[in-house]
Amino acid sequence: MVKRLRKSFHCPTEFTLAILGGKWKTVILCFLKERPCRYSELRKLTPKLSDKMLTQRLHELIDAGLILRKPRGAAHAHEYSLTPRGSKLSSILRHLDNWGRENAPSFGVRVGEPMTELELELKGLGIETPTRLAG
Amino acid sequence: MVKRLRKSFHCPTEFTLAILGGKWKTVILCFLKERPCRYSELRKLTPKLSDKMLTQRLHELIDAGLILRKPRGAAHAHEYSLTPRGSKLSSILRHLDNWGRENAPSFGVRVGEPMTELELELKGLGIETPTRLAG
Repeated sequence: MVKRLRKSFHCPTEFTLAILGGKWKTVILCFLKERPCRYSELRKLTPKLSDKMLTQRLHELIDAGLILRKPRGAAHAHEYSLTPRGSKLSSILRHLDNWGRENAPSFGVRVGEPMTELELELKGLGIETPTRLAG
Repeated sequence: MVKRLRKSFHCPTEFTLAILGGKWKTVILCFLKERPCRYSELRKLTPKLSDKMLTQRLHELIDAGLILRKPRGAAHAHEYSLTPRGSKLSSILRHLDNWGRENAPSFGVRVGEPMTELELELKGLGIETPTRLAG
């Protein structure tokens, strides 16, 4: 069940965090701001999430009007993408991503580039990925 | 207890969110990026947090090396401020804050400006607040 968005917040940051909706939903949005993804792609991009949790997070994002699921190509194939409302988050998602990439070394932390890794893997299999959207 | 930071993250956004450490810690960091605050000021800025929760979040932020508590002025008076490590988050905190302020109207949501309200309240009491730090 999706928590209904409050009509009033004490501070702007609290509101932004309510829209982003926690760690995993933010990570999923971050991938989808790059390009639409199929479930199997999101599955590979979020190896720490169980199938049940990934499905639940995707349903919550759909219910919140931030992403949509639409048919793509072959029968029964679907992909997830940002809605116009979700796209409004692109700039903040890009900053979260960039900050992590730039600052991880100073915290002694290694961060992966899962979207790039996935694209290379798909290219190796001869599967063409959609062009990245300008963030 | 503070969860030890992992040494490796699957994606940069996941790392950034681990550093920010959830909703209330991020909100507290957002206030402290503006200027150092006393406990009583943070108390007013986070009316939805209980005393116990606020104290716990502050301890977690100190343990993570993002803020520090130091004496200020009168005996037994202390204030909290960002450490150099916490200051590295300033740009991302500013973006979270700005995005919330700019986009709340399009979601039909009202957001407060608690830092400004607090400063006006303190000014009315003749209490001078420190100059805002460049973010």
